Formats: sequence, C-alpha cells, structure tokens
Amino acid sequence: MIFGIDIGGTTVKIGAVENGCIIDKYEIPTCKDTLFLDICTFLRKYIKEKEIPEIEGIGFGIPGNVIKNYIYNMPNIGLKNIDLNQEIKKYFPNVEIAAQNDANVAALGEMLYNKEYQNACMITLGTGVGCGIVLDGKVLEGCHGDAGEVGHMGIATEYNFSCTCGLKGCLETVASATGIVRLAKYHYNEYPTQLKETFTAKDVFDLARKNDPLCSFVLDKVGFYIAKCIAMLAVTVDVDVYYIGGGVSKAGDILIQAIEKHYQNLSHYAVKNVKIEAAKLLNDAGMLGAAGLIQRD
Amino acid sequence: MIFGIDIGGTTVKIGAVENGCIIDKYEIPTCKDTLFLDICTFLRKYIKEKEIPEIEGIGFGIPGNVIKNYIYNMPNIGLKNIDLNQEIKKYFPNVEIAAQNDANVAALGEMLYNKEYQNACMITLGTGVGCGIVLDGKVLEGCHGDAGEVGHMGIATEYNFSCTCGLKGCLETVASATGIVRLAKYHYNEYPTQLKETFTAKDVFDLARKNDPLCSFVLDKVGFYIAKCIAMLAVTVDVDVYYIGGGVSKAGDILIQAIEKHYQNLSHYAVKNVKIEAAKLLNDAGMLGAAGLIQRD
Repeated sequence: MIFGIDIGGTTVKIGAVENGCIIDKYEIPTCKDTLFLDICTFLRKYIKEKEIPEIEGIGFGIPGNVIKNYIYNMPNIGLKNIDLNQEIKKYFPNVEIAAQNDANVAALGEMLYNKEYQNACMITLGTGVGCGIVLDGKVLEGCHGDAGEVGHMGIATEYNFSCTCGLKGCLETVASATGIVRLAKYHYNEYPTQLKETFTAKDVFDLARKNDPLCSFVLDKVGFYIAKCIAMLAVTVDVDVYYIGGGVSKAGDILIQAIEKHYQNLSHYAVKNVKIEAAKLLNDAGMLGAAGLIQRD
Repeated sequence: MIFGIDIGGTTVKIGAVENGCIIDKYEIPTCKDTLFLDICTFLRKYIKEKEIPEIEGIGFGIPGNVIKNYIYNMPNIGLKNIDLNQEIKKYFPNVEIAAQNDANVAALGEMLYNKEYQNACMITLGTGVGCGIVLDGKVLEGCHGDAGEVGHMGIATEYNFSCTCGLKGCLETVASATGIVRLAKYHYNEYPTQLKETFTAKDVFDLARKNDPLCSFVLDKVGFYIAKCIAMLAVTVDVDVYYIGGGVSKAGDILIQAIEKHYQNLSHYAVKNVKIEAAKLLNDAGMLGAAGLIQRD
C-alpha cells in the first residue's frame, strides 16, 4: 500500500492506493501548526485499524516550491523551509517519502489514470496557470523546482499585463481565471456582450457557448495563448498528449476546440498530431499522482 | 571502446572513445550512396589494425530527424528512411547502436566534457538554430524527435519573418547566421554602419565589437531573442546551464553578455541564477556526445 497525500489550502486529501487504484480516501482540515503531525497521526490510526502489514511509501503533492523533498515555501498555507524527510521519518522511519508540487503531481495522476501515454503534460488553469511535465513516466522537477512553470512564459506580450511574479506578459495574466476576467474587462467596450458589471471566468465561457460576441472573442484569445504555450512545449519536451485541467478547463469542449484551432497554425510540422484533451480526473488526480511518485521495485 | 560517429554534410567524423576521452579521430568523406558501408568498413579496418578485442557500442550524431535509431530524413545528404539498427548490424551484429540528431548529440558531448552538470541545454547557432536538452545525463529525444527544436519557437513575432518550416516569427529567422544578416538588412537604413553591401553574421559581430551602431543594435536584438528562448526553457525543463554553441557563437563574450543582460529582465525569479556559457568543445562535441549515447553498464 502507498499513501498519496494532496495538501491543499483548506483540506488535505489522503488516498490509500493499491496497484494504482485509490481504495480509500479521506479529507482532514489543513492546520498550519500541526500539518504533518495531523497527517501522520491519521495514517498511523488508519494503518492500525485496517491492520495493514506494510506500507511502501508516502507521496505528497505540495502547493508550493519543493525540490528533493525539501519544501521551500507553501505561500497559501504560510509554511516555509520544511525538510519533509525529517518531518515524516519521525513517525515512519523506514518508509520511502517523495514530494512534488501539486501541478506536477496532478499531471502524473492524470497520466497514470489514462494509462495510454508515458509522456504527457498537464496544463492546470485555475487561480494561476501551472503545468506538470511527465517524461517516461517520471515527473520532471527541474533544477530549481521550476520545470513546467509555463504560467510564466512571456507569450502574452500583446497585452503585457503585469504578473504577480514581477514579469509582464506571462501566460497566467490572460489564461488563469483572473486573467480571463481581465481580458474581458480590457475588451469590454469593443464588443457587444451580456456580461454584467461583475463576472467570473465561468460566466465568460458560459456566454461564449451562447455566441456572446465579447465572450467568444475572449475564448478565442485564451485558446490562442494556450495553443501558443503548447506549441512551445512541443518543440521543447515534445510529449504525446497535453491535458488541460483545473477549474477553468470545466469550459470543456469549447475551450479544447479553441486551443486546437490555433495549435494547427502555431505548431511545428513534426508535432501537428499531438493530442490535446480535457483532463478526466478531477479531485483524485493529486492523490493518485502523489502515490505515483513512489518508485516501486 | 566506443565509437562516436558525427555525420556531416561533407565529412563523417569518427572518434574512438575510451573512458569518456577521444583517443583517436579521423574524417572520411560523406558519400550518399555508400555512407554506412564506408563507416563500417573504416571501423572494421581500424579494429583489425589496432587489435581491439571488443567494442561496447557505436553512437551516431545524425544531421536530421531520427527517432529510436530510425532515420526519417537527412535533408542535406539526401537520404531518407534508414533503419540504422539493421544497417549497422549487418557488419556489427552484437554491438549496441544508438543515434540522436546532431544538436542533441553535441549537447551531450558538451555536458560530458564539462562534467559539472547533469542537466544542460546547448543552443546551437549556425545555419539554423538547434538545441539539445540533457536531463539527468540523458538526451531528451521527444515523442516525435522534436525535443529541443527551439529554432521554431514563435518568439520573434515583432518581425514575423517567414521561416523555412512554414511558420512565421521562429527564433531561427533572427538568431541563425542568415537570420542575423536578415535583421541587419532590415534595419540597414535606420542606423549608421560600416557594413558593406554584402556581409555575413561574423561581419556583424566583428563590427559590433567596434561599437558600430547598426551592428550593436542587431547584436542586442539577437541577445534578446536568445535570452527569451532560454527564459522559455527555464520554465519548461529548468536545467542548470545553457551552453551557446555553433558558428555564430564564435562571437564569444559580447554575445553571451547581450544574452545575459536580457535574461535577467525576462526570466522567472526562481531561475535567475542559471549559467549561460559559450560552449567549449568545438569540432569534437559531436563525436564525444555520439559515444556518450551508449549506456555503459
């Protein structure tokens, strides 16, 4: 048995995984001061109650920057500089530990679930834009934990909106949930629209589905920039499939179609035939991927 | 002993490599009709003359598209669809064969030579712009042989020059030897210059060194676009070091400085401290990297 732990800002999802399937799942609240104590206490109780003879490892999806199991920062939780090996080995001295940031772990989960490909990227469109890159079944971490940080590709230079990272023109400034709202506000007076004065990214896509002129325009722009990002990934890591996940991706088919249309015009000839698909796993990708970090013999 | 074979348009470089060092090197002419026969004949003669008891493998750097030892195309030589395993095993039935495109192989050679890092990219500026990506000491091939084809990143959209690949605004259209000449011609009437009517990329950089206004402007632009490419790589594969190689890189320090200046403004905060260095190996990188493709036990 392997445990896959998906740490979020408000809850921690804990999955018990056997042979690549989640057989049990739980949620506990995220408490800053007792985060890893709470997780380990839960696991020890579960192991005792279920009389589990041996656990192979514990994998973690971390909402922040982590390199070689050292957590540099979890900004949304307010924790910094945690040596995860040390923290967990207090309670589980002989268990393998592995951790990656949550976008990477979600990508691995999606890949493991779909089973078809060993090389995949998953672009997560949420509050920000993240991406996990899986090569030959393994998550690419990067020398500075920055592999797959495509939200900070400077490809939206047409607008050059300021990004929270300090740069301008990052993909995230136009393709995240807030980015989509920003784009719609920017073009608000140029196209007729049924959007009210305050609206969300979901409202934009819902109205785009009804051919609202402004919202259709914004959807097309978002599709263009994500396609551009995939075209960059395709001449860099060149994987088989690009999954689009995260809250914004719930727009579904209309978003995938907008991306695919532009991708054909933006991509290098050798990589025209990649797959661009909506992610299938929703809440479970983190747990499954976190468990997947443990390298079984 | 391992042989590293670097196939070029006019000559084939053959290196005999032991413990990561080239101990013997030769060049034979590239003859389209007898290419692999010539190489194997040479190797058999060499092995016999030197009384070499065993060879561990033969690695190839291919000027074209190759996936899993199958050569789809070598446009400059005019050969297509060659199963390299089959071709070589006729002469060396029990020898390990490995092949990658020449940009990948040069990157591996540079990494092996410098020894300091296991994660590196080498951007090769020549007739085109290529790039090899080495992760954990292994060359990234890509699912369509397109990993590291950064020459076709669409980042020079300010100019939107047409590229040989069919796209517009590719990095190659401004940062290759012909791209640099193109840029200088495009801005020819905007800045004073000592450039004659016909000139090469080398002339541009030579005059930039003497503060020629047009050539300094072009150098700065080329530095900007390569920096932008590295910033993209840094949030995708996130390696430790980016080597700049190929004929254009002979411009040396002034090019590296131009790249570094822009990189600081274009890069994500987590990857500001990467190394950007001129490649040190020149003609030998291909042979050393080709030999390095063979995985020794």
